[in-house]
Amino acid sequence: MKVEGKDLRPIWLDKDSKTVKVIDQRLLPHNLVVADLRTVDDIITAIKEMYVRGAPLIGITGAYGVYLATLNSPVKIIEDRYLKKECDRLKSARPTAVNLSWAVDKVCSAVFKISDASDKINTARKETEKIVEHEAENCRKIGEFGVDLIEDISRRKNSETVHLLTHCNAGWLACIEYGTATAPMYAAYDRGIDIHVWIDETRPLNQGARLTAWELGKYGIRHTVVTDNAGGHLMQHGLVDMVIVGTDRTTYTGDVANKIGTYLKALAAWDNNIPFYVALPSSTFDWTLRNGIKEIPIEKRHPDEVRYVQGMVQGKILDILITPESSPAANFAFDVTPARLVTGFITERGICKASEKEILRLFPEKKNP
Amino acid sequence: MKVEGKDLRPIWLDKDSKTVKVIDQRLLPHNLVVADLRTVDDIITAIKEMYVRGAPLIGITGAYGVYLATLNSPVKIIEDRYLKKECDRLKSARPTAVNLSWAVDKVCSAVFKISDASDKINTARKETEKIVEHEAENCRKIGEFGVDLIEDISRRKNSETVHLLTHCNAGWLACIEYGTATAPMYAAYDRGIDIHVWIDETRPLNQGARLTAWELGKYGIRHTVVTDNAGGHLMQHGLVDMVIVGTDRTTYTGDVANKIGTYLKALAAWDNNIPFYVALPSSTFDWTLRNGIKEIPIEKRHPDEVRYVQGMVQGKILDILITPESSPAANFAFDVTPARLVTGFITERGICKASEKEILRLFPEKKNP
Repeated sequence: MKVEGKDLRPIWLDKDSKTVKVIDQRLLPHNLVVADLRTVDDIITAIKEMYVRGAPLIGITGAYGVYLATLNSPVKIIEDRYLKKECDRLKSARPTAVNLSWAVDKVCSAVFKISDASDKINTARKETEKIVEHEAENCRKIGEFGVDLIEDISRRKNSETVHLLTHCNAGWLACIEYGTATAPMYAAYDRGIDIHVWIDETRPLNQGARLTAWELGKYGIRHTVVTDNAGGHLMQHGLVDMVIVGTDRTTYTGDVANKIGTYLKALAAWDNNIPFYVALPSSTFDWTLRNGIKEIPIEKRHPDEVRYVQGMVQGKILDILITPESSPAANFAFDVTPARLVTGFITERGICKASEKEILRLFPEKKNP
Repeated sequence: MKVEGKDLRPIWLDKDSKTVKVIDQRLLPHNLVVADLRTVDDIITAIKEMYVRGAPLIGITGAYGVYLATLNSPVKIIEDRYLKKECDRLKSARPTAVNLSWAVDKVCSAVFKISDASDKINTARKETEKIVEHEAENCRKIGEFGVDLIEDISRRKNSETVHLLTHCNAGWLACIEYGTATAPMYAAYDRGIDIHVWIDETRPLNQGARLTAWELGKYGIRHTVVTDNAGGHLMQHGLVDMVIVGTDRTTYTGDVANKIGTYLKALAAWDNNIPFYVALPSSTFDWTLRNGIKEIPIEKRHPDEVRYVQGMVQGKILDILITPESSPAANFAFDVTPARLVTGFITERGICKASEKEILRLFPEKKNP
């Protein structure tokens, strides 16, 4: 996507073919810094420490991790046992996003079939690049399907501003291009539809205030940052026409694990009769889980992410303590929005209701997993 | 309330009888600083800039403002016209809290009846002190009634820990003693009931993370700070037994204006069948309003309170920028929770359901306002 006139992606392979380059998203919006990842450990750190985040991007980063594993094999022949161990390490870097396992397994199983070491390396790279382009294309399609919903609202409102609300960052920074939740927004902007986006700041790591605001701002989309507390009030007062969020893992029955706080916005949308859509590439579906609240593992992260807030003062990025020194905190990273609160899914194959039947109608090949 | 073994209130009149002392709550939890207020302008600044906050304390501060107005009259006789103007200025310092008008009017109308200037000054002081002791006594009673609810839960749980959740600070810092939402917590702790309190950080000004955590911690009550996003997840997973919040203004039909985000927690409590109580002295009822969402004015504060977060780094208190420099923000200070989501009110006269009928049963003298 365009940033100051230049095309930029959140991850790419350097010309040397040995270094994976990623935007260090911890430093946005204040500094645009690119980090070099050369080993599986670098990849794991980048995922764990959240240089990269967002379900599709975590998956792609993991896939590049498999590529780096093949490249850095300690013995020339790239043993299956070694590769499997590296893949397991990669998959455990973050527990909630299903894309990570999905992408790592996809590359790994392609590599397993090959015997020659340099073929293995090439296969890992090609398979990863396939996933990259596939995710980008999926996001483009999500935008194409989703923009019709926005255009409908715009028509009903006689071209008055359509107010959208989003939580966290399910933008191109979380994907490759377009994003998931933001793809319909970019498409709407490109079509000349008058939109304005309320962005939840999304504590504790403020991906909304830091990343979504930065992305939309760079593209020229009108937006306003609000606290995570504000959405209910906005919806009560008719200031939101539609909510669009992303997801980290979605059951085939329609339950949605997404950044902590999503469930609260879904409740408010439901209480105020406002459409609540979840945008996702189908790689985010978990075809093995029926009950999201019971079955999706929710990552607990370090309490200091709650106790401290990161921001900029006088050109420096600092972490400041907001609680009493002695007060403990708890840091649940995701919550699960039950299917009954979701108006629909926007996928690369079209839009469907949040029910097993409708999801399987769109993805019939998954009927017998 | 005890702080490091010393009794402390958030506001008091100095021995010189000319200076109102307040804890500058903007600097908590990191620094405990007392500010001197000597004029009506000082009082207005303290309310506007939120040295003091919380409905009952704002009311009391306003009442002390009327006292300072009588003390600082530019002419000896303390003209009614002058006093009325000062009271109007005081009342407009913050629009949402009904206690401010209530307390200022109460002191002012007592003063109007007196002709002698020094009697006026004495009356203003006595009337203010009456409000102070009345509010403290009300909070004590709220604690007495509310603790029974907690004890019931404790009994049902066979004395296992009772998990409470609160939003913002409706503690003694917002009142005089005990607080409103916290009064049942202090009473439960004093009775030896095993409680643990989840504290919403309460962006943008983090009164939960800063003030409630400080208060409860100083008293020895076990607590955990969570982001405002976390409450829904906690409730879904059975980790909350009861929600108790305060309110800044409540209609006699039971609609509750409280810190922005309260409505979202009420929705989650309702969705998970968890009791949601609002603790309030009856001075917080607005006997003139029927429809909270339509009629209660919601203060919009400066967007920089959202764009910046205040905290401590290396012993210094700093404001750090969390959004892109160019991103706008909006800052709604309160929202309204409709009566249908409220399990009950805990008042100084007892507990009642959130309905006109039940509220008027408890306060029958208000039947013909």
